[in-house]
Amino acid sequence: MIPTSLRWHGPAAGDPHPGHLELLDQTLLPTRLEWVACHDVDTLVEAIQSLRVRGAPAIGIAGGYGLAVAAGEAVRDGLPSEQARAHVLARGERLACARPTAVNLRWAVERVLGVLGGLPDDTPAAVLAATALAEARSIHEEDIRLCAAIGRHGAAILPEGGVLTHCNTGALATGGDGTALAVITTAWEQGRRFDVFADETRPLFQGARLTAWELVERGIPVTVLVDAAAGQLLRTGRVGACIVGADRITANGDTANKIGTYSLAVLAEAHGVPFFVAAPSSTFDLSMASGADIPIEERAAAEVLRPLGVQAAPDQARAYNPAFDVTPARLITAIITERGVIRPVTPEQVRAVLAR
Amino acid sequence: MIPTSLRWHGPAAGDPHPGHLELLDQTLLPTRLEWVACHDVDTLVEAIQSLRVRGAPAIGIAGGYGLAVAAGEAVRDGLPSEQARAHVLARGERLACARPTAVNLRWAVERVLGVLGGLPDDTPAAVLAATALAEARSIHEEDIRLCAAIGRHGAAILPEGGVLTHCNTGALATGGDGTALAVITTAWEQGRRFDVFADETRPLFQGARLTAWELVERGIPVTVLVDAAAGQLLRTGRVGACIVGADRITANGDTANKIGTYSLAVLAEAHGVPFFVAAPSSTFDLSMASGADIPIEERAAAEVLRPLGVQAAPDQARAYNPAFDVTPARLITAIITERGVIRPVTPEQVRAVLAR
Repeated sequence: MIPTSLRWHGPAAGDPHPGHLELLDQTLLPTRLEWVACHDVDTLVEAIQSLRVRGAPAIGIAGGYGLAVAAGEAVRDGLPSEQARAHVLARGERLACARPTAVNLRWAVERVLGVLGGLPDDTPAAVLAATALAEARSIHEEDIRLCAAIGRHGAAILPEGGVLTHCNTGALATGGDGTALAVITTAWEQGRRFDVFADETRPLFQGARLTAWELVERGIPVTVLVDAAAGQLLRTGRVGACIVGADRITANGDTANKIGTYSLAVLAEAHGVPFFVAAPSSTFDLSMASGADIPIEERAAAEVLRPLGVQAAPDQARAYNPAFDVTPARLITAIITERGVIRPVTPEQVRAVLAR
Repeated sequence: MIPTSLRWHGPAAGDPHPGHLELLDQTLLPTRLEWVACHDVDTLVEAIQSLRVRGAPAIGIAGGYGLAVAAGEAVRDGLPSEQARAHVLARGERLACARPTAVNLRWAVERVLGVLGGLPDDTPAAVLAATALAEARSIHEEDIRLCAAIGRHGAAILPEGGVLTHCNTGALATGGDGTALAVITTAWEQGRRFDVFADETRPLFQGARLTAWELVERGIPVTVLVDAAAGQLLRTGRVGACIVGADRITANGDTANKIGTYSLAVLAEAHGVPFFVAAPSSTFDLSMASGADIPIEERAAAEVLRPLGVQAAPDQARAYNPAFDVTPARLITAIITERGVIRPVTPEQVRAVLAR
């Protein structure tokens, strides 16, 4: 099966109601495969806040579809056009605020609202719904194309040997096949065969829970390791490349990503193994000159002290739990974007490739 | 409270029975503090095999006391001297085989049996028991002195700044205050104050479960981090030294230790942070020229895929689970033994310090 994080259900032929959004509940993976049916915005907001859907692109797409859900509420309740529009606007604001730091979420909501804003005031709820759905589908399809382009560019430069990845950067995190994981699956689908290694990615185990699940679903054999075993694995020579995603990339190529990425980059350099970052161009924040400008967010101690909900440390222990770290550009062999490959990673090359 | 892994209970005044061994059940820490009372050898063997007692020195000491437990069985059952001796010998063999790779276990059992072997054939069970107990206590007391010496030598060279350690190397792993952890607690008891950081140490969480518990018990504040956060922590400059234990050290100073030690040593070097190994001289295996001679044991996949018994990865995922890795001598600033500090870590210095 090709894994996917979300899908739209409907509309039924001739029905003015647009249908509903279904989200794969990522908090239950890999042991339970359950879809959350979002017939209303409250259910969707809860799903976003509880990380049932995660990954910046996937959250953004869900937010876009959320406006079709909101307009569907207006259709269901028989709201006249003016009330329907006010309802969709209010729900849009609620959606955009569901996770304050998720840039893609507000961006997608505002994009759909912008299209709705271009419609006449007396547009009926059913037309608002159909328009919102069409725009959300565009956002979704653009992300699918973007993932495919990243996968293609990355597969073209992926060296021989095993591949080691960190965290989850696949279909569950995006609307398409992912970023770093798309490079791996694209190369595999092109007929290349290699060992795929997934760091478990403490504290939230996205590597073990999500990346391993995606690869198993695609029929690609995967080997999970504890993060601390990466050094020993690299030393055996079984890894030809490391590849990770990115939360934010600054103008010089410094890359913020899931905690553990920086450690892995240092280890890769020590073993002469190339280290790749794969991310859409929208991940670049050119307002920041370097990674020194990126504040490091600390998350709840319980993520460290209570893995998978089980107490592992004494009550009085403290925790150091940075959500991500910053890998300096000098440790990154290349950054793979949908516009092409940035290599070497310099401010000039960043500008040149993003200008394509 | 000063943590301890085991204690002998008895004998009562005038009682020919030597008493019994109590082991702190380390599988239940840190949430439950329960002692296993070993009135018979079967209970002790089960405790060793189930890792209720762990750490090579602690297992050895438990094995030594195990012969007093065996002789206590003979006293209780009223066995005549010849049967009592045969019983103790047979139980000794069972104890020595409880964990085949635990070198200290067989060594301690054979040391106590050697002393019993020097007694006349008609020695009554009660005298065998008292003699075994006395020799086991000697082994225990020697380990206490040895830990204290390591702690003292290490504290004398511990640099300013926070200290980061990996796995558990404290009172729970030895008969005394530990090896690497003894360096930390000794410096603290000397009045020095510094941040103590403990890697959680996946897959078995000995850092979170055991090291953090020991430090909390001693009133030393401890901060736990996921292993993958070590790079980011080192980068902040909050760590002045890393210090770890050792499973085996070869003639050139290459050190086999818990998985993740090698990754940490590479990261320490990349940040200019000194990296110390603390271990008794008995850890050296001079029959091996270098770490290349050490075979890397792989442990059960479930340790990785089912952390703390909870399924974290899909059934079809494989695991890479090396029990330990080898840190080359060039990454080790100094090796701290009870005989002194090996620095720089060269074959010549290893020989010179071990000859003291």
